[in-house]
Amino acid sequence: MGDQKLTPPCHHLSPTNVRDLFDSLDAFLFDCDGVIWKGDTLIDGVPQTLEMLRSKGKKLVFVTNNSTKSRRQYAQKFQSLGISVTEEEIFSSSFAAAMYLKVNKFPPEKKVYVIGGEGILEELKLAGFTGIGGPEDAKKIVQLKANTLFEHDKSVGAVVVGLDQYINYYKLQYGTLCIRENPGCIFIATNRDATGNMTDLQEWPGAGCMVAAICGSTEKEPIVVGKPSTFLMDFLQKKYNIPTSKMCMVGDRLDTDILFGQNAGCTTLLVLSGVTSQSTLQDPSNQIQPDYYTNQISDILDLMKS
Amino acid sequence: MGDQKLTPPCHHLSPTNVRDLFDSLDAFLFDCDGVIWKGDTLIDGVPQTLEMLRSKGKKLVFVTNNSTKSRRQYAQKFQSLGISVTEEEIFSSSFAAAMYLKVNKFPPEKKVYVIGGEGILEELKLAGFTGIGGPEDAKKIVQLKANTLFEHDKSVGAVVVGLDQYINYYKLQYGTLCIRENPGCIFIATNRDATGNMTDLQEWPGAGCMVAAICGSTEKEPIVVGKPSTFLMDFLQKKYNIPTSKMCMVGDRLDTDILFGQNAGCTTLLVLSGVTSQSTLQDPSNQIQPDYYTNQISDILDLMKS
Repeated sequence: MGDQKLTPPCHHLSPTNVRDLFDSLDAFLFDCDGVIWKGDTLIDGVPQTLEMLRSKGKKLVFVTNNSTKSRRQYAQKFQSLGISVTEEEIFSSSFAAAMYLKVNKFPPEKKVYVIGGEGILEELKLAGFTGIGGPEDAKKIVQLKANTLFEHDKSVGAVVVGLDQYINYYKLQYGTLCIRENPGCIFIATNRDATGNMTDLQEWPGAGCMVAAICGSTEKEPIVVGKPSTFLMDFLQKKYNIPTSKMCMVGDRLDTDILFGQNAGCTTLLVLSGVTSQSTLQDPSNQIQPDYYTNQISDILDLMKS
Repeated sequence: MGDQKLTPPCHHLSPTNVRDLFDSLDAFLFDCDGVIWKGDTLIDGVPQTLEMLRSKGKKLVFVTNNSTKSRRQYAQKFQSLGISVTEEEIFSSSFAAAMYLKVNKFPPEKKVYVIGGEGILEELKLAGFTGIGGPEDAKKIVQLKANTLFEHDKSVGAVVVGLDQYINYYKLQYGTLCIRENPGCIFIATNRDATGNMTDLQEWPGAGCMVAAICGSTEKEPIVVGKPSTFLMDFLQKKYNIPTSKMCMVGDRLDTDILFGQNAGCTTLLVLSGVTSQSTLQDPSNQIQPDYYTNQISDILDLMKS
């Protein structure tokens, strides 16, 4: 692209611009991994920042692509880290998968095969659907012999694929057969993040890895329900009745968080406490520019004080 | 595309055209899965057909994308099915991966991480390289705890990905870290077949599934050494000194076998004994037309007699 700028450069969050930004907003939407915590470790200053925002009447919402937990399990995780968040404030991609089926009137008598964690199964159940697979299939081993016939449930009408630390050939064959052979079976991806901060020390393959595997064997593309898809925005707006122009999406990932915010018409703030470095942000090859960027969310608190 | 035909329609092999085809050829290149056998079961009439071709002085070569076996192991499989084939007549994608490293002067002091079967490790060893991973990592389990640091060998300079029935999160993280973090580390795919006839009753996820998974987590594209890449054709031609115009590629897959034959300038013959049906071949959406098609390779024998 050379010198041609398609989008204006983003602003470093500063004592000068933070007050105007703050006053223009009614809600803050936060990504979790790399923004609130890394693995199981809270990022510095998070509780105080969230407390200040709440005390000023701002709505707080947590929008996460991590599908391994349900909303209930997320609320527990916040609790265990000393932060009070309700289930209703959490919009996870596991919840998004269940809501996608609900909105699209998925027949409740059909089953859903899950490649992913317990969180997806729990959300499916809460929405009235029957999920199979998931953790239960973690230890299944395929024996390939001449007369092996791998049987799959013909009543599976959807396959949901998310991050799965226990991915194996059994699950890949099961999901592939459902998508290829069950008429009308839909293929849902919770998200396509390449990697995630599964621990605080390094990145690990994300749902994008398992989703790509199923794309590779089925030669089909999924419906993505997590960020950057704005599927969840309708639920969020119905719940809070706030226009997206009064929302700020805060995240550490350009291709999911910031793109989601931009797709939805929100103000966007990139934090450098997760996967994106300042050099990646400012690299000429990067096409996604947030409105603002800063090191971590506690900068909002510090800059407001100064 | 509608009525617009980009390529001439292919001919059904018949008593009228089989003799001219036969006389114009010096070598037959056969794919194995779906052409010679399905799983561990020989396809009808294969031994007699191969015997007839040899008796008429035709060179026989076997070009397979299945990387789970080495050339030696393939020769054993032919033997066990009652067909005499030498290692030198076999060009497998496991061999192709090792040859790619050799031709590109891969430093022998560097290691190669393998996602795939024993066959790749054996071919690497024969070519003088040190392979790690593969079957040895089949039972490794990742424990994701706060302070887990997943260590990988910094001397890995190439990751080779093939079909792996024992794919797991450990291997995915290992391969991903090598490609993302080891400077200059190359990413080689034995092939990208979506599925394969791993057993005679149904198809299973192929190397394309594992390769896509690594593409998903690394956000990089591999170097493909198996079909439809013509990388192996140089070796084949040096060995047999036959122009590709005198060769016929016989396979069951349009996007690998037939495309490989066309890319190399061979005559192409599709057999319907594997993954491609006549309706797929004749579907208007199919862009790859072989020169000829027939049900199975023994038709050559039968048609020559009639």
